[in-house]
Amino acid sequence: MKIDILSLFPEMFDGFLNTSIIKRAIDTSLVEVRIHDFREFADNKHKKVDDYPYGGGQGMVLMCQPILDCLKSLVTKDSLVILMSPQGQTLQQAYSQKLSLEKHLIIICGHYEGFDERIRDYVDVEISIGDYVLTGGELASMVVCDSVIRLLEGAIRETSHEDDSFSDGLLEYPQYTRPYEYDGTVVPDVLMSGHHENIRKWRLQQSLMKTYYKRPDLLQKREFTEEEINILKEITKKRLILSL
Amino acid sequence: MKIDILSLFPEMFDGFLNTSIIKRAIDTSLVEVRIHDFREFADNKHKKVDDYPYGGGQGMVLMCQPILDCLKSLVTKDSLVILMSPQGQTLQQAYSQKLSLEKHLIIICGHYEGFDERIRDYVDVEISIGDYVLTGGELASMVVCDSVIRLLEGAIRETSHEDDSFSDGLLEYPQYTRPYEYDGTVVPDVLMSGHHENIRKWRLQQSLMKTYYKRPDLLQKREFTEEEINILKEITKKRLILSL
Repeated sequence: MKIDILSLFPEMFDGFLNTSIIKRAIDTSLVEVRIHDFREFADNKHKKVDDYPYGGGQGMVLMCQPILDCLKSLVTKDSLVILMSPQGQTLQQAYSQKLSLEKHLIIICGHYEGFDERIRDYVDVEISIGDYVLTGGELASMVVCDSVIRLLEGAIRETSHEDDSFSDGLLEYPQYTRPYEYDGTVVPDVLMSGHHENIRKWRLQQSLMKTYYKRPDLLQKREFTEEEINILKEITKKRLILSL
Repeated sequence: MKIDILSLFPEMFDGFLNTSIIKRAIDTSLVEVRIHDFREFADNKHKKVDDYPYGGGQGMVLMCQPILDCLKSLVTKDSLVILMSPQGQTLQQAYSQKLSLEKHLIIICGHYEGFDERIRDYVDVEISIGDYVLTGGELASMVVCDSVIRLLEGAIRETSHEDDSFSDGLLEYPQYTRPYEYDGTVVPDVLMSGHHENIRKWRLQQSLMKTYYKRPDLLQKREFTEEEINILKEITKKRLILSL
């Protein structure tokens, strides 16, 4: 996979590209990531990239020319052009999975300014990472890259995905490691039992319970096995008793 | 405001802390951000921070001791302790606003591993930035910091907040800047008119339309002025005609 990122702050990406799983994915050529400072494409002598908004108002607006000339120098028939924007569709794990199948992503980041609306005409998809305002699209673009790159084959141990929160539509079960006792709190007996089937059942039950109490909305998007339905019945029965 | 971040990858934060609005907020002492490598608190001779999960399973689990000893060295009665976790409440702009009133945030980041469940006992709030899986909490913690720091008084021009998407529950209206014509597309007439009241109305109408078509869920969370209700009625009427 190739990823090209258009940003006015290329140095923001240094730490991200040089750490851990992302660095390894780049070093092993699973992904090639290039950051492009679109200021270099500004065709005015002061390398200006923004101007006042037509109709008045606060702040500056990023101009079409520098961003779109940069974009046009990169785009091919294999490219998916993404604009990071609070107006975009909200990123979800299923969409990251879809993006991980693309050959070439081009991601445009703004920075605490609006875009000239006409830039949207050259974009395939607008993505938001959530309903909050950031100073720029840089962190948001790194979030997209991170969630996508870790899904590329070979980026992390394949089986590691299986337990991810959201991957099977449930939050992850509680994990414990040594010491057995910390500050008076001990590891649940079942995990010390060595009884694999009981451990599996307990973890599934805990996953379902966490999801039921913390993110019931996730349950509505999911189909259940018979075993899961029986566990959910018990959870809701307990809740009824507690509320009496 | 003081922000302490616990992470195994302090170098990931360099670019973020040295760019633009965040750098200026730090330079002008609006906020003090310190990154702590909790590996330095590991009390074993190999500075190990993780171990195998009790009960078996893939991957490693972060141990209580290094994280909690680091945390205990920082926490005061003014601290709000945040754990970045896919199981947390999803960050929303209103919650960033609440966080921006805190004196001291302590943010714990994991990295592609689970936590020992007992760490949760020392945490005030778990925050997720969205329903997708990342290789670690570092980017997520930067997203929280960015959304909070820009809200601190003096971080950006105060009036800049007013037009933010989400801030008044609507997506932002389209912005245009020079040139008047780009690639055959021109700026809407109303913005060239100099008629302030018409421009205000058009922008409000565009904001409502964008929100209605792209994020109707946002409209359900919001109360409307009479002017807004009349505009919405027109938008829905048009839609009815289009669907006939």
